[in-house]
Amino acid sequence: MLLSNETLLTQFHSRYATKNFDPVRKIPAATWTTLEQVLVLSPSSYGLQPWRFVIVRNPQLRVTLQPLTLGQPQVVDCSHFVVFARKNVLTGADAEKLVNRTTDVRGMPRGARRGCYDTMVSDGVKGPRSVWVKEWTERQTYVALGNLMTSAALLGVDACPMEGLDPAGYDAALGLGTIGYSTVCACALGYRAGNDPSAAARKVRYDFSEVGEPR
Amino acid sequence: MLLSNETLLTQFHSRYATKNFDPVRKIPAATWTTLEQVLVLSPSSYGLQPWRFVIVRNPQLRVTLQPLTLGQPQVVDCSHFVVFARKNVLTGADAEKLVNRTTDVRGMPRGARRGCYDTMVSDGVKGPRSVWVKEWTERQTYVALGNLMTSAALLGVDACPMEGLDPAGYDAALGLGTIGYSTVCACALGYRAGNDPSAAARKVRYDFSEVGEPR
Repeated sequence: MLLSNETLLTQFHSRYATKNFDPVRKIPAATWTTLEQVLVLSPSSYGLQPWRFVIVRNPQLRVTLQPLTLGQPQVVDCSHFVVFARKNVLTGADAEKLVNRTTDVRGMPRGARRGCYDTMVSDGVKGPRSVWVKEWTERQTYVALGNLMTSAALLGVDACPMEGLDPAGYDAALGLGTIGYSTVCACALGYRAGNDPSAAARKVRYDFSEVGEPR
Repeated sequence: MLLSNETLLTQFHSRYATKNFDPVRKIPAATWTTLEQVLVLSPSSYGLQPWRFVIVRNPQLRVTLQPLTLGQPQVVDCSHFVVFARKNVLTGADAEKLVNRTTDVRGMPRGARRGCYDTMVSDGVKGPRSVWVKEWTERQTYVALGNLMTSAALLGVDACPMEGLDPAGYDAALGLGTIGYSTVCACALGYRAGNDPSAAARKVRYDFSEVGEPR
């Protein structure tokens, strides 16, 4: 066990959806690089990674996004603002890119992952999942969101997941449509301000006996 | 910083979608209780927790689920098998249950969270999100899935997320329809077997320069 049960739960209890960020305090570079790698290393269906993680550093762009986010101050006050976007369409080229990368990374001959290619194409490109590719790729971005929030908490970084945004407005402001991606959700990261009343509020969760179903 | 950047990334690199579990080795009770709490403590939109985590302990039921999961052996061989289900419909009663729990937990008078109740009802019950409540609640289960996978890796527990399953078949086998929930995905947890060839395979991820979009 690398992390004790107690430390893990302590961090889960201390995290919360941060409403007021300290606008001055920034995430150190080494910590941010780690969180970028957490995003990169997130698992996804077939390993397709059908996502883009938009890191909005431009302060003026953050000001543009704030009214598209119910006016929430986290957008401008946080240290790092990540927008999660999903790929709009999965194509044979996406499957081919992945299998070629796989054979390259693993030192296999090109073509060795043909079976994987065929499975991805017959499912996600032309088959059953292609019908609901929007939902499918959205779901994957939420795995990355969950990983990012948990990892941030374990590194002592505060976060606020944000669903209350205008996806079409974000797409336009961030130029995502032209590269074939759509905004799903966002996450503000940084450090809580001393005056955030939410920080002290007791967490409200249903007991495991209420949300767990033994079978 | 509670966990070093290096330790966090080491665990992300060592985790993988486990194909072969050791059918004998079980997750210790204290670790499992921790992972249950990780599920409970997962964040969700408005804090609504529109989910059920079905823990399938009955070996015969696992045998029933295996053919509904593309025959994958993880279903029967893993130590703990979790099915993630979403609530089919959000109602005013769900919003009321949450605000009442909130006021109780935080020692506020009943009715103090009326504004929250109104917001949830005018959005998720009768408003814009009620139109796509299926997608919305599905997304929340993926936050919990992401948290569970990351937490498991940090506790030295192996996991395999599973989307390749027959949701309707699962609902019937687990009796979820009658309680108003639907299967979304599953996660097998336990310890890798010595003979899992996937364990040694190099991880394949696109570089941050390929999936990150600076703006």
